Amino acid sequence: MKFCRFSFDGKVSFGVIEGGIVFEVDKDPVVNGADGVKKTGIRRKAEEVKFLSPVLPSKIVAIGLNYKAHAAEFNKPLPEEPMMFMKPSTAVIGPEDSIIYPSHMSHRVDYEGELGVVIKKTAKDVPVENAAEYILGYTCFNDVTARDLQGKDVQYTRAKGFDTFACVGPCIETELDPANVRIETYLNGEKRQDTSTEDMIFDVYKLLSFVSHVMTLLPGDIIATGTPSGVGKMKPGNVVEVMIEGIGILRNTVAGRA
Amino acid sequence: MKFCRFSFDGKVSFGVIEGGIVFEVDKDPVVNGADGVKKTGIRRKAEEVKFLSPVLPSKIVAIGLNYKAHAAEFNKPLPEEPMMFMKPSTAVIGPEDSIIYPSHMSHRVDYEGELGVVIKKTAKDVPVENAAEYILGYTCFNDVTARDLQGKDVQYTRAKGFDTFACVGPCIETELDPANVRIETYLNGEKRQDTSTEDMIFDVYKLLSFVSHVMTLLPGDIIATGTPSGVGKMKPGNVVEVMIEGIGILRNTVAGRA
Repeated sequence: MKFCRFSFDGKVSFGVIEGGIVFEVDKDPVVNGADGVKKTGIRRKAEEVKFLSPVLPSKIVAIGLNYKAHAAEFNKPLPEEPMMFMKPSTAVIGPEDSIIYPSHMSHRVDYEGELGVVIKKTAKDVPVENAAEYILGYTCFNDVTARDLQGKDVQYTRAKGFDTFACVGPCIETELDPANVRIETYLNGEKRQDTSTEDMIFDVYKLLSFVSHVMTLLPGDIIATGTPSGVGKMKPGNVVEVMIEGIGILRNTVAGRA
Repeated sequence: MKFCRFSFDGKVSFGVIEGGIVFEVDKDPVVNGADGVKKTGIRRKAEEVKFLSPVLPSKIVAIGLNYKAHAAEFNKPLPEEPMMFMKPSTAVIGPEDSIIYPSHMSHRVDYEGELGVVIKKTAKDVPVENAAEYILGYTCFNDVTARDLQGKDVQYTRAKGFDTFACVGPCIETELDPANVRIETYLNGEKRQDTSTEDMIFDVYKLLSFVSHVMTLLPGDIIATGTPSGVGKMKPGNVVEVMIEGIGILRNTVAGRA
C-alpha cells in the first residue's frame, strides 16, 4: 500500500493512494500500523490534493558513502562500517515544497536522491535477520547538502541541517522489496542519478540493525540510506525529482531566501 | 525559578523547586511559559521525588571546541565559527539515571560537563541582540562521548548518540546570567573540570543566533554549549556529577549493558 498525508481544503488527512485516487483513512498509519487504519469513504483525485511529507520523524539518521560509485566520485575508501549522521526534524518538507537556498552561508547546494526507510515500531539492538519486522515502508528522500560547508565544517550537521534540506514523499510504500529498486534523480528534467539499490555497500537491513545498536529508533523515524553517484549542484529556480521504482516521484523546486 | 519534572508515586508532574521543597505546577513550563503555570498546592520534599529530565527536547544541538583550554587539550585550532553537531532525543536521561556503557562498540567513554540552554519559543534567524528572548532557562548537561569512536568515525553521531549519552537536569533555572557561571565536573567525588563560562569562545547568545540561522529551534530544544578542559574517561560503577553555579548538581552513575 502507498500511504500518504495530504491537505485538501485546509484539512490535513492520511490516505492510501490507489490508481490516481487518494482514499482517506481514519488514522495515522505510522502510529497505528498499516492494519490499524480504515478507509473513511472520502476519496479525492491525486491531482486535487496537496501531498505533505507522509511522516513527521522524531529523527532522521542518514548514511554517508553507501554506494561504491559515490565513494569513488569523492575519492573516499569504502567504509568498513556504516557512516552515520543526523538531519533535524525541522528540515523536513513534502512534495512540491520549496528547498530554500541558504545563500547567507552557502554557495553550493546539491541534491542527493536516496531511498528512505520508515520505522514501524521501537527498534533497539535489532539483529539483521529481524530488521524487516521493524520497517513500515519506503519513501523517496532528497538529502539536500550544502557541499561547500560539508567540506569546511567536517561535521555534516550544518551542511545537511538547514530548514527544507530533507525532502520526503510522496508516500510510504509498504510492499517494496528494497534489494533491487532503481533510484533516479532528475534536475530540470535531465537524468543525473540512476542506480539500483543492489549497489549499496550496506543493505537496508544491515543499516537498521547497526543504527539500532547505537540509538533507539522510534515509529516514524527515517533512515536515509545514502546516495548513489551523480550528485550535483542546484540553483534557485531549478526543479529536482527523486524517482524510485515502485514508490513514485518526489518533486521539489529550489527558491531563494525571502 | 527552578522548574523541574519529577515522578512521585508513579505519577509524572512538573514543579518549581524552592528551598528543598518541590511545589507542583499545573502545566509544562516549556510549553506554557514560566508565566503560564500555577502552583497546584501540592508540595513534596526534594529528597522524596525522582527528578526526571526537566525537558524532552525535539533536538539537541551541541557545540564542539567552545572553550579555549579544551581546544588546546586536543591540539585543535580555535574555530572561526561555532562547530555544530547533534545528539538524538533518544539519548536523553535525567538525574540519577544510569549512563549505559556501550561496550559492544566502545572502550573509551568520557564525561563532558556543559551548560545547556533550553529554548523558550520558536527561533529562526534570530539576531544576537534578541537571543535572550528565546531562552527559557539553563540546565546542567553531560555530553557523554565515546572518545574512541569520535576519532575513528570523524562524524560524531555514533560517538555521541548512544542511548543515555545526554544527561539533563536537575532543573531549568530561568534567572541565570550565563556570562560568568562556574561549571564543575566531579568523577567519584574528585574534581575534574572547573571553568567559568566566561572562557567560552562563542557566548550563549552568539550560539543561539548562529544555530537559528541554520535550523529552526523549537520550544524545549537544547543547545549544549561545549565543554571546558579536563574531560576524561569513566568506567562502569563510576559516579559523575556536573555542578553549575546557580542551577544545581546533575548526578549520574555509569552501568554496564544488561
